[in-house]
Amino acid sequence: MSFRARHLLGIEHLAPNEITLLLDLADRYVDLNRRDVKHDTALTGLTQINMFFEASTRTQASFELAGKRLGADVMNMNMQGSSLKKGETLIDTAMTLNAMHPDLLVVRHPSSGAVALLAQKVNCAVLNAGDGRHEHPTQALLDALTIRRAKGRLHRLTVAICGDVAHSRVARSNIWLLGKMENRVRLVGPPTLLPAGAADWGVEVCYDMREGLRDADVVMMLRLQRERMDGAFIPSEREYFHRFGLDAEKLAHAKDDAIVMHPGPMNRGVEIDGTLADDINRSVIQDQVEMGVAVRMAAMDLLARNLRAARSSPEVMV
Amino acid sequence: MSFRARHLLGIEHLAPNEITLLLDLADRYVDLNRRDVKHDTALTGLTQINMFFEASTRTQASFELAGKRLGADVMNMNMQGSSLKKGETLIDTAMTLNAMHPDLLVVRHPSSGAVALLAQKVNCAVLNAGDGRHEHPTQALLDALTIRRAKGRLHRLTVAICGDVAHSRVARSNIWLLGKMENRVRLVGPPTLLPAGAADWGVEVCYDMREGLRDADVVMMLRLQRERMDGAFIPSEREYFHRFGLDAEKLAHAKDDAIVMHPGPMNRGVEIDGTLADDINRSVIQDQVEMGVAVRMAAMDLLARNLRAARSSPEVMV
Amino acid sequence: MSFRARHLLGIEHLAPNEITLLLDLADRYVDLNRRDVKHDTALTGLTQINMFFEASTRTQASFELAGKRLGADVMNMNMQGSSLKKGETLIDTAMTLNAMHPDLLVVRHPSSGAVALLAQKVNCAVLNAGDGRHEHPTQALLDALTIRRAKGRLHRLTVAICGDVAHSRVARSNIWLLGKMENRVRLVGPPTLLPAGAADWGVEVCYDMREGLRDADVVMMLRLQRERMDGAFIPSEREYFHRFGLDAEKLAHAKDDAIVMHPGPMNRGVEIDGTLADDINRSVIQDQVEMGVAVRMAAMDLLARNLRAARSSPEVMV
Repeated sequence: MSFRARHLLGIEHLAPNEITLLLDLADRYVDLNRRDVKHDTALTGLTQINMFFEASTRTQASFELAGKRLGADVMNMNMQGSSLKKGETLIDTAMTLNAMHPDLLVVRHPSSGAVALLAQKVNCAVLNAGDGRHEHPTQALLDALTIRRAKGRLHRLTVAICGDVAHSRVARSNIWLLGKMENRVRLVGPPTLLPAGAADWGVEVCYDMREGLRDADVVMMLRLQRERMDGAFIPSEREYFHRFGLDAEKLAHAKDDAIVMHPGPMNRGVEIDGTLADDINRSVIQDQVEMGVAVRMAAMDLLARNLRAARSSPEVMV
Repeated sequence: MSFRARHLLGIEHLAPNEITLLLDLADRYVDLNRRDVKHDTALTGLTQINMFFEASTRTQASFELAGKRLGADVMNMNMQGSSLKKGETLIDTAMTLNAMHPDLLVVRHPSSGAVALLAQKVNCAVLNAGDGRHEHPTQALLDALTIRRAKGRLHRLTVAICGDVAHSRVARSNIWLLGKMENRVRLVGPPTLLPAGAADWGVEVCYDMREGLRDADVVMMLRLQRERMDGAFIPSEREYFHRFGLDAEKLAHAKDDAIVMHPGPMNRGVEIDGTLADDINRSVIQDQVEMGVAVRMAAMDLLARNLRAARSSPEVMV
Repeated sequence: MSFRARHLLGIEHLAPNEITLLLDLADRYVDLNRRDVKHDTALTGLTQINMFFEASTRTQASFELAGKRLGADVMNMNMQGSSLKKGETLIDTAMTLNAMHPDLLVVRHPSSGAVALLAQKVNCAVLNAGDGRHEHPTQALLDALTIRRAKGRLHRLTVAICGDVAHSRVARSNIWLLGKMENRVRLVGPPTLLPAGAADWGVEVCYDMREGLRDADVVMMLRLQRERMDGAFIPSEREYFHRFGLDAEKLAHAKDDAIVMHPGPMNRGVEIDGTLADDINRSVIQDQVEMGVAVRMAAMDLLARNLRAARSSPEVMV
């Protein structure tokens, strides 16, 4: 069993045993992060550059801490106020940074596919921290680790992914991952917020929360991505919460020990009832954040190993 | 003699011997910072997160250098452009960061009491880097260290705090600290810029600079906080300087060896005459900045020791 | 042969053997940066502060990586959103940072001479990262290293510096450096974009690209600095490219093995044809970026050595 990827661009191309290996390593980093001295040397002397073309508080912070705890030299590039304004192209910017010899490039970009394009041009390992509506692989991996630790397994579970699936790269990466690990995935939400071709993805589709949550082991709420809804019909927040917001009554249709997830940031009283979000018997929302740092440490550790191996036998380099 | 606090939220709840202990340790860090190699290992492997909900150049820089020189992994969060825009609450933001296992959280916030509220929700040590008009404890500590080094003692001194006291958390923290150490504190300024209930604080109040500075050992000027003066009467800068700006003539009413302080950033020619600010025989303004880094190193060092102790005997944790 | 400078404010005051010594050390750092573990201890325990009063993606990143790889504690100050807004002067800001005991201060400022002014006020080593239209010494040094590695020497070369010379501190620093090393420098561009007194600088001036590129060993393109052209006549981009943009046809007038340079960020199709910029047989644009990190490591290493020496024998301090 080995992790062979050169980049982490999405869940789509990962094999189940690669996912398992990554989560196993992440489990060890969870332990490290709970200690006083949260240091390891896996990335010592390596350079990690975070290029965020979209603002992000939590994802960038999570990657930054992950790198620093593993000893990397971490540099944040706020690309919203950057050379792009001076007329430089995305590829020129990437090539410029590449010439500074980074080892790990963490990229968030508003356009689907931009991160993969960029990965073709550079010599280092690239991690997709979210590209348009396409993928957000470390989010799916941290969700998977959270589920595996809460449920004791990551297969044969019924997972309801609820809300604004259409605009969500989080949902897309989770659908890939949960499918690969042989879970039953149900998308739940209003027709306008479910993707058109969802029926072809090997998932169930449901327009009613109570029905959609029936017998679910995991209820995964999504954030309403208003900033991506150009022109689409948006229900009022009150109406949305009434029909699709998660509260104790709707959750009662899921299994008694169903866990509640949300990738954050939460709109309390819109997607989820605030009391339920804070209920540590049901909600694993804080665990997701904790697992996020560990999963990113594991991903960067494994990619750095592959990078070193490829450099010492260049003919293997793709 | 011991430092028992879990957080540093204000001067109000510190005991005099805690203040002394903290300043004694800070003295040693002043020496360290004057060396070429400015490194210690007190915070090695610990994570420090700076959450600034208000912009600050010098305070954030001072905390950042303090943490880095002690070996911490330091992460800056510019919270003005953050998830708060996506509808997340302050507490959710704090809980999210808390789940990433920081050890030290340095917080500046425009609302009085916000930092204390946040401290109740997290597992780590919280340092208040300024909350509304409430407190700015490390500023008072650095002022105290500056005074103690310049005057040889921190008690039985007459300290005139001059200018915009009403809007100043710096003044509040200094009044607490100087009072605890048994100094005589005089607030000097126009009635509109002095706090309403000041007479009850155990301080003298004076509306005239020459009178207020009489026999002062320390003249502490404050910054005009125009950004906090919504609707209040603001004198012209010229008129203000004439009546309340510090110059050589007014300073002559203080003791011959009185020192001049200002927390910065200064408005030269408004609060203080530029030549006087630069007079190294009277002004200790640069010393204040230097002491700032040392005091923050000491505060984080002591809080980290308490955090480690609390973690190893969890029943003590509040 | 020794490097004696206390600051790196410009190329103007460097001796040829100082330039050579700096480039020799940079060559060694190029090798370090190509390794997996890109760490050295030359700046361990020292504090580097990057003060950028103008936005810069690549230069700030290059200095930041240079410092981190040498073990410095690096702090970035975005001075555009800083205390300056609160009315503080440049000098006060510099004095404040100086009181925090930095060892290396990297400064970019929109006004020519501002960095030199600031250097007079502080105790640490100051590196000019670009001041107005004056100098950008590390750019000239990285260009020199790129040329020396590509051509095998840094003297008796014909170098055509083309385009917007009038607004370019890059050009000014390069003209100084190339002149000191006994090269033939030709400025090429429309009269409106060439500096008025250029004829007195010991360079040739040429208003036609084909003529200007004749027999050149090095073709150095500049960026159109539209942000500095207040009121000046600006040709259309199409017209500009036709007459002064570099393409294969114009380049054919240079020597067969002439190299093509650009300091970035590039306006493809305006200053330079995109295909030519990417042609690894002619373009050394990526090499320039790589050399940039190495040159900045060398400069900071040498300045830190001088700083340590000056501190241990203070009478030498100027």
